[in-house]
Amino acid sequence: MSGFRHVVMFAWAEGTTTGQQEEVRARLAELPALIPEIGTLSLGFDAGVNDGNYDFVVVGEFADRDAYVAYRDHPAHRAVVDDYIKPILDRRASVQYEL
Amino acid sequence: MSGFRHVVMFAWAEGTTTGQQEEVRARLAELPALIPEIGTLSLGFDAGVNDGNYDFVVVGEFADRDAYVAYRDHPAHRAVVDDYIKPILDRRASVQYEL
Repeated sequence: MSGFRHVVMFAWAEGTTTGQQEEVRARLAELPALIPEIGTLSLGFDAGVNDGNYDFVVVGEFADRDAYVAYRDHPAHRAVVDDYIKPILDRRASVQYEL
Repeated sequence: MSGFRHVVMFAWAEGTTTGQQEEVRARLAELPALIPEIGTLSLGFDAGVNDGNYDFVVVGEFADRDAYVAYRDHPAHRAVVDDYIKPILDRRASVQYEL
């Protein structure tokens, strides 16, 4: 396998509604149609198996590092981050790595 | 796609050596041969593209939630966590989700 993977988790602020969380997912799910550099974008709500987890995860696969950076900096992605994620964000954790 | 994905990131404590980090990766890489419930286990050191990232990520794929729990609780996995991860751990972030 080759490629480049971006993984990011979010923990939402106290008082975040289910609707706000669904909106983040829905907006991110629109991005593959808008940003051709995205290979796949897997989105998941924490399954509730373990205590202390983050709430939501994004696993993105890209051809290479440059394709990831194009996604990271794309205006459509930045708009989701600024308008939907940041307003409800408590904590964020991320790693990018070569596959 | 169906299945169950486990994602966990680690940030290592100040002073952790490259050797210690390589040892964690090597020990985790042995687990698929020991724990039949593991589908795939992808291991990655942060690529250094962004500041503020965690250091290391594990993305595990399992047939279902029960298979993940079998991995989580397997003595061979617990031994890696206790003997190699916890001694150098600063912060941990995780999510499990249905694919």
